[in-house]
Amino acid sequence: MRNFKLLLEYDGTRYKGWQKQGNTEQTISAKFEAMLQKMLNQKIEVHGSGRTDAGVHALGQVAHFKADTSMTTEEIHAYLNEYLPLDIRVLSVEEMPLLFHSRLHAKKKTYCYHIYLDKKPPVFMRHQVFCHEGFLDIKAMKQGAALLLGTHDFQSFCATKKGKKSTVRTLYECQIEQEAHMLTIRVTGNGFLYHMVRILAGTLVEIGEGTREWNSLSELLEAKDRSKAGKTLPACGVTLINVDYEEDVT
Amino acid sequence: MRNFKLLLEYDGTRYKGWQKQGNTEQTISAKFEAMLQKMLNQKIEVHGSGRTDAGVHALGQVAHFKADTSMTTEEIHAYLNEYLPLDIRVLSVEEMPLLFHSRLHAKKKTYCYHIYLDKKPPVFMRHQVFCHEGFLDIKAMKQGAALLLGTHDFQSFCATKKGKKSTVRTLYECQIEQEAHMLTIRVTGNGFLYHMVRILAGTLVEIGEGTREWNSLSELLEAKDRSKAGKTLPACGVTLINVDYEEDVT
Repeated sequence: MRNFKLLLEYDGTRYKGWQKQGNTEQTISAKFEAMLQKMLNQKIEVHGSGRTDAGVHALGQVAHFKADTSMTTEEIHAYLNEYLPLDIRVLSVEEMPLLFHSRLHAKKKTYCYHIYLDKKPPVFMRHQVFCHEGFLDIKAMKQGAALLLGTHDFQSFCATKKGKKSTVRTLYECQIEQEAHMLTIRVTGNGFLYHMVRILAGTLVEIGEGTREWNSLSELLEAKDRSKAGKTLPACGVTLINVDYEEDVT
Repeated sequence: MRNFKLLLEYDGTRYKGWQKQGNTEQTISAKFEAMLQKMLNQKIEVHGSGRTDAGVHALGQVAHFKADTSMTTEEIHAYLNEYLPLDIRVLSVEEMPLLFHSRLHAKKKTYCYHIYLDKKPPVFMRHQVFCHEGFLDIKAMKQGAALLLGTHDFQSFCATKKGKKSTVRTLYECQIEQEAHMLTIRVTGNGFLYHMVRILAGTLVEIGEGTREWNSLSELLEAKDRSKAGKTLPACGVTLINVDYEEDVT
């Protein structure tokens, strides 16, 4: 048995996310499993670093699978890119120690939320951005973002609180950058809760619009109440940029 | 009667080009005409600076139409962007003297042909590039491109020679630039023949591959024979970047 790490990108527009409960056909992981099973003639399970929602994109998703094969990583890479559709691309295939796990060993993840500051987006960006018209106070958004850094209970930014799982996460970075009409919210953390990136973005946009004070974010964290945070922005604005691993397993 | 100039961009993937003989529904100009007729409640003809082939994109196409209306350019702009699909976007609407004609007064056009130097393109570029694998001698391509500059009979680079229309054109620029995996052939001329950009790109790629000598291009021009030039590369690699007008009509 060998263990393979995949680095991949996808346009999530056509898919029901990375993986579904019940694993329907139109998910990214199901596409990979179908392709790998055909290629390797054995049952394959593909594990991702995390689930991405329906419509969410990735430029640096990481996944792994175990297989009994003598194929080289180059052969696997070429086969997958040839037979996967054009909205999924494998960037690299690497053989890893058997213990490597793309989700359990992930140390940090970076997501971007892309907001296009106009009524209608450029035609070639239309599936990757959320459009926002009207003034946003970027300075206030940056001040608010700074209050989210560090280790907090992010329950206010989580769509569902299931059972007793911890909602404590550490945010290492929450940068807001504007370049012409494109506003990018870039967040790096040790993990993200369900819809957390989209609720963070929605809350920061409300600060930018002036309907929420930037210095209210500390209270919002303390409230641990989803209903007090901002709107969940659409999935199409989210892109998973990067997953970092502990050095000893990569 | 007033005359309006439209600056617009489109992803040509879903369309049968700018305009067809017989004007079928699924062309860009037909989309505009349908929308404008609905908005203005009168028969409208939209004229483009030139026809783009099925699948060709534009970031700076220019068109014009005449209408009897009291709407402002801002109102027309907002209406069109709201009701046109996301793969067509109006960048500006400007009122012009009645004599302005987007095709007859066009002085220069610039097209880019985008070649992605790998087997599979990045997912978000998949509709805008032609993929080429293997070595291309960029230096030879640049040397060949230089021979095309100036005023020549470009009949060898024209898919159809109909009747007695002149095939003489002037090429002001033919630049080849590489940035990481993206090779861009940028051509500016006073006009382009049918499939000329795609045949120019195909011929330059054959020079890059080493199956054609860069210094054979002068002979090729003199031959005035389409069958002696290179392959017609796919339409998806072509983007109309810009149309320039005589100063006294803009």
